[in-house]
Amino acid sequence: MTNKPLILITNDDGYKAKGINSLAAFLRDVGEIIMVAPDSACSGMSSAITVKVPLRVNKVWDEPGFSIYRCSGTPVDSVKIALNQITSRKPDLIVSGINHGTNTSVSVHYSGTMGAAIEGCINNIPSIGFSLNSYKEDADFSFCEQAVRRIVQEVLENGLPTKTCLNVNFPDGSNLKGVKVCRQASGEWVEEFEKRTDPHGGTYYWLTGYFKDHEPEAADTDEWAVKNGYISVVPCKTDITNIHSLTELKTRFEQ
Amino acid sequence: MTNKPLILITNDDGYKAKGINSLAAFLRDVGEIIMVAPDSACSGMSSAITVKVPLRVNKVWDEPGFSIYRCSGTPVDSVKIALNQITSRKPDLIVSGINHGTNTSVSVHYSGTMGAAIEGCINNIPSIGFSLNSYKEDADFSFCEQAVRRIVQEVLENGLPTKTCLNVNFPDGSNLKGVKVCRQASGEWVEEFEKRTDPHGGTYYWLTGYFKDHEPEAADTDEWAVKNGYISVVPCKTDITNIHSLTELKTRFEQ
Repeated sequence: MTNKPLILITNDDGYKAKGINSLAAFLRDVGEIIMVAPDSACSGMSSAITVKVPLRVNKVWDEPGFSIYRCSGTPVDSVKIALNQITSRKPDLIVSGINHGTNTSVSVHYSGTMGAAIEGCINNIPSIGFSLNSYKEDADFSFCEQAVRRIVQEVLENGLPTKTCLNVNFPDGSNLKGVKVCRQASGEWVEEFEKRTDPHGGTYYWLTGYFKDHEPEAADTDEWAVKNGYISVVPCKTDITNIHSLTELKTRFEQ
Repeated sequence: MTNKPLILITNDDGYKAKGINSLAAFLRDVGEIIMVAPDSACSGMSSAITVKVPLRVNKVWDEPGFSIYRCSGTPVDSVKIALNQITSRKPDLIVSGINHGTNTSVSVHYSGTMGAAIEGCINNIPSIGFSLNSYKEDADFSFCEQAVRRIVQEVLENGLPTKTCLNVNFPDGSNLKGVKVCRQASGEWVEEFEKRTDPHGGTYYWLTGYFKDHEPEAADTDEWAVKNGYISVVPCKTDITNIHSLTELKTRFEQ
């Protein structure tokens, strides 16, 4: 077993979700699998870490080459505690997902799936976040298998560019047109808070909204790719410096 | 009052923190101030959003040109609900902080202070996150006033590069050597989970650790600047695509 690559799997929908268990099944023979994932759904957790309460981790499955742990914290907590307390060697790969719902465009910032991938990348481990354009609990992930395996094997063999992880999004449907390496689309979530009154007269709000693509015609973005039946692959940097603005800003702010 | 710029202030330490109230005091005469900030400390909240429970917002202070609201959610929730339910016009500027503790290097990913600034930036509002290299509740923020006002006024006058916000970090001490426009240092948090046993025999872990700078000699990073007495200003992009790797990855993944 020790010659096989060690693959750490996590997600933000919790260790019982269909997406993560599909991902584990796809990669079962590719490597030794350790799944460390949140107890329950952690959507929208971004790169949040738990600092005010302690973490708990429990092993819930253990067979040769495949174990599952549930963690009381966030996706990033799961990666941190896996690397520090659970894995006996540095994983060769971290995969996160498959998320129930896309994480294209600016959703990468809110995504716990991608938070975990970015965490892996900060730790110099090749990392990939996978998401599917379906929010259904019982979504069909089976048609993702071939592409997931191909991408994973390519990354295991050849690594990824420095401080760069992959944000991979699948369209919902088996008619895949192939992979498109893309840039992150420019867009925003337009919020429409739903205001309600509780039985005691208090006001509360539910966060809702819709995504607005600022460049729907641009065919080189992840949004466009997924909408048009392609699997989008966006290389994401952990260094978010706008390096091209340094000179201008130096003249403005350094005095 | 309506001719003055509208400045939305938030943070991740909560509306009662000394840092945010110092920031509000510094900018009191620069614009109309609306503070919308978390009820209580939300450190390490990154760009997390609240989707599983509803949000509540309450006004706690109201005088002409200066109001304070507390929000039950995260820093990003605070920005979203402020823009959608509280401000009557689009703010001219969003400022977040002053955080009790630095957010240099990769800490930008975990930071709720910077999560709020990135959220403002996604919404096309010039946004700045301010942090101080002191975790003390009663930290002295007074020496930050002059630089905060200068940076804010420069941004109000000339805006910021597209989809770019500022991550500003102050050293702890009044001997400021000036502003340095920097890039984000390469580094990581080395975790040292503290394992404990609860009174019922259960195991739990506290997340602790220390920051490891991968390039301590590089004088163009935010880490170096703050360590050497400068105020660091890093322009941060909301588009995290590693655009330089697209060609290589196309040949590897598109088939």
